[in-house]
Amino acid sequence: METLRLYDFLPSGNGYKIRLLLTQIGMPFERVEVNITKGESRTPEFLSKNPNGKIPVLEVQPGKYLAESNAIMVYLSEGTEFLPYDRFLRAQVLQWLFFEQYSHEPYIATPRFWISILGKAKEYHEAIEQKREPGYAALKVMEEHLSNRIFLVGEHYTIADICLFAYTHVAHEGGFDLTQFPAIQDWIERVKAQPRYISITEELKLW
Amino acid sequence: METLRLYDFLPSGNGYKIRLLLTQIGMPFERVEVNITKGESRTPEFLSKNPNGKIPVLEVQPGKYLAESNAIMVYLSEGTEFLPYDRFLRAQVLQWLFFEQYSHEPYIATPRFWISILGKAKEYHEAIEQKREPGYAALKVMEEHLSNRIFLVGEHYTIADICLFAYTHVAHEGGFDLTQFPAIQDWIERVKAQPRYISITEELKLW
Repeated sequence: METLRLYDFLPSGNGYKIRLLLTQIGMPFERVEVNITKGESRTPEFLSKNPNGKIPVLEVQPGKYLAESNAIMVYLSEGTEFLPYDRFLRAQVLQWLFFEQYSHEPYIATPRFWISILGKAKEYHEAIEQKREPGYAALKVMEEHLSNRIFLVGEHYTIADICLFAYTHVAHEGGFDLTQFPAIQDWIERVKAQPRYISITEELKLW
Repeated sequence: METLRLYDFLPSGNGYKIRLLLTQIGMPFERVEVNITKGESRTPEFLSKNPNGKIPVLEVQPGKYLAESNAIMVYLSEGTEFLPYDRFLRAQVLQWLFFEQYSHEPYIATPRFWISILGKAKEYHEAIEQKREPGYAALKVMEEHLSNRIFLVGEHYTIADICLFAYTHVAHEGGFDLTQFPAIQDWIERVKAQPRYISITEELKLW
């Protein structure tokens, strides 16, 4: 099998999802850094890989590309313990993945990008404030769900946990206060305790 | 098998995806109208079905609910001709579904809601203008992709087409000009020509 190549940006939670899963599955891959703050995901060369101009992109075979972090997650986890075999459980995993991209990431990830990656908290002050209410609403949905569960779907750690963990555990870098969400905090610790866990900006341990 | 029950709002493109697929598969279902403009998706009763307070929600068995339109689409299409069996093609379908929810729907569907469903074009003027550039960028990605293809993935009509069609074909109701996208227009006609096609606000033909 060809070595997978991941076009990625190290601080990105969307890229981190893929890195964490591949590391936990134990599948070697090559990482290509694309600095999105310098327009590197908007070059003609990059747009030929993903016309939507976003990382991460997975090169599954030379010249064969897959975009959208959560689509990549499903693709890589099929047939592994990280994606349930049961049809309804798998649908629930997808439900959380779409929740993440529609109701969570646009509000939780963006303030982190402006504040902690671009360092422009003042410039984006108004836009950041507009993200607060929907961001906390998404966290509230998670808190309620996790209040009587160990993981998001079924009884096991799945890609739903990885996909939601990626930006939730660094939500404070976007100014969100996680101390009011004890169930989320406990769940974060359970995710961090999983075998072969790596942190978001940790360079890869290829053992 | 139990009859499926769909909690839905007739003008909703996200609800329409499910109605169109179920009609084309030939699977009977019961529709329950939830008027989201009257707060009906925010009642305690509805929130017990989907804590995120959004339609559509599919009741797959009494008391067993699935939310997120595109997760429902994958769930319903598994094992049918509307979802490819090949792993990479299926991943490409998912790529388009996540593209739709992240880069397309928030910009294309929202102005339509404000202008044509709420009838508040003036009130939302500024917000609508902010959606124009990213909305046209999403349409441009589709146009380029469809310029040398019949359908979005592989050679066949799949749920990727249904999911992107839902809001694209009514984009003009949100003030987008589709005449500059000939490949999209041709694709719209191909989708409309599919067997058992129903229009977005058409009450169901249960044959």
